[in-house]
Amino acid sequence: MDRPVFTISPTEAKSMAESSSLTLPQLLPSLVTSAQSLARPPISNFRVAAVGLSQSGRILIGVNIEFPGLPLHHSIHAEQFLLTNLFLNNETNLHSFAVSAAPCGHCRQFLQELRGASDIQIIVTSESDPKFTSLSQFLPYRFGPHDLLPENAPLLLEPRNNGLKLKKKLANGVCNGNTVNEKLKIAALEALNKSHAPYSDSPSGVAILDCNGKIYKGCYVESAAFNPSLGPLQVAVVAFIAGGGGEYDEIVGAVLVEKDGAVVKQEGTVKLLLEAISPKCELQTFLCSYD
Amino acid sequence: MDRPVFTISPTEAKSMAESSSLTLPQLLPSLVTSAQSLARPPISNFRVAAVGLSQSGRILIGVNIEFPGLPLHHSIHAEQFLLTNLFLNNETNLHSFAVSAAPCGHCRQFLQELRGASDIQIIVTSESDPKFTSLSQFLPYRFGPHDLLPENAPLLLEPRNNGLKLKKKLANGVCNGNTVNEKLKIAALEALNKSHAPYSDSPSGVAILDCNGKIYKGCYVESAAFNPSLGPLQVAVVAFIAGGGGEYDEIVGAVLVEKDGAVVKQEGTVKLLLEAISPKCELQTFLCSYD
Ligand SMILES: [Zn+2]
Ligand SMILES: [Zn+2]
Repeated sequence: MDRPVFTISPTEAKSMAESSSLTLPQLLPSLVTSAQSLARPPISNFRVAAVGLSQSGRILIGVNIEFPGLPLHHSIHAEQFLLTNLFLNNETNLHSFAVSAAPCGHCRQFLQELRGASDIQIIVTSESDPKFTSLSQFLPYRFGPHDLLPENAPLLLEPRNNGLKLKKKLANGVCNGNTVNEKLKIAALEALNKSHAPYSDSPSGVAILDCNGKIYKGCYVESAAFNPSLGPLQVAVVAFIAGGGGEYDEIVGAVLVEKDGAVVKQEGTVKLLLEAISPKCELQTFLCSYD
Repeated sequence: MDRPVFTISPTEAKSMAESSSLTLPQLLPSLVTSAQSLARPPISNFRVAAVGLSQSGRILIGVNIEFPGLPLHHSIHAEQFLLTNLFLNNETNLHSFAVSAAPCGHCRQFLQELRGASDIQIIVTSESDPKFTSLSQFLPYRFGPHDLLPENAPLLLEPRNNGLKLKKKLANGVCNGNTVNEKLKIAALEALNKSHAPYSDSPSGVAILDCNGKIYKGCYVESAAFNPSLGPLQVAVVAFIAGGGGEYDEIVGAVLVEKDGAVVKQEGTVKLLLEAISPKCELQTFLCSYD
């Protein structure tokens, strides 16, 4: 087929629903089983898929991703993949999703980063009598952005520009010049400037290059509860997979941009993950600041 | 005072409750504010304390710990500290706890590792009308160990012995001998053999030595949802803090033992955390196996 398998356009989604005499939310559960085949869980072999409907009527797929050779906190859950996929498609909110297993607490927490999170409708297809239930019933007495941020602060998926610029001096002392693809550096900076990091004020961005010359961007996404945060390379890996990427060793270039003096530093951890998935790929790190 | 501040013995707890004409669970909220002063959250400056009651009547304190210079997934939440503290005191279950802020989803998930988790009673002292509510109401439609393990598999805090032995060949090629404190190596192996890692079958253990010659053990603790897992050095840091340790640079020795061929490997991440908290301390890694 000639469309990316991780998204279905609003037009196509509408026609699929109409041809089955279903509403768009009713269509979601029927797409879960086939989406599970897209998961990459070599540790648990437990395939999870989350099929979501955006506010604009687009259908987006998320699956779980695991990385052998590393601690389990690198794992990306289907719901986290789904939110990242919404971001990649410039969608600004999530209406509802169907998921193959009950969302874990870590994901229920991560979903709180969306405005109006409590109203997201969730249906768990593995239940005996699946029906849509709001996120507020999955995570009552919630802790979230409203506990820490001003009301008008941009939340996840809402437009933001962190407004940082690259510093001339490099993080790792390597001379600026031809050693690094300028396009990758600029893409990583763009990712950093869209990074959702309001809790630590430590935005970061990654750009990776595959062997076909395609660039995938990953911006760091923070959770109010800290631990469910998604690192910038994890987000870039989601972009790679959702964008049609195959084996991870097709990733041949990687740039990380971090904020100078940031309290949260990604470099060491990004290196560990990159080494695990594409051992020959080197990471270049650059710093940026507000002036 | 002459007792460790992170635990109150059953006898003392009983006498405190009686002198205030309270039940033991009713006593817990009154201990939260003073416990918050024990937190170490240099990133968020958001002090959280969880004061728990074990099945045996002991009161245990947990606080949140954050590590600047690293990604946020290294953070230890108060509820995770509390469970680790139960483990350090050979307690086999948690009856109830009072906590200064609503538990995040990541912690509600981590708590599922206990047998009978749904019945744990929680009171959030920051609420306008605090009252005890069961964990099942904080995380309905739960995902947990029961979804993945046989009914009789030991859960967190239940007795286990993974039964692994050190291999003669070292992980990092360094010759065996006087370079490493044998006591630390044995302590790390003991921690590994108590490690709760049923989902990846990748138990690991850390032992750290402080400048007073005291050894603290940390066994890796896994979550059915993967990401909320606590790494072995994180658990050892909890043991260090709960055991009266002061500044992290008092940690002068560290040994990690991992299972040969394990799918989850801790070494790179343990090194990053150790370097962030005690830069001069070197990590020695050893491998073990079933024979
Ligand atoms: Zn999850
Ligand atoms: Zn928490």
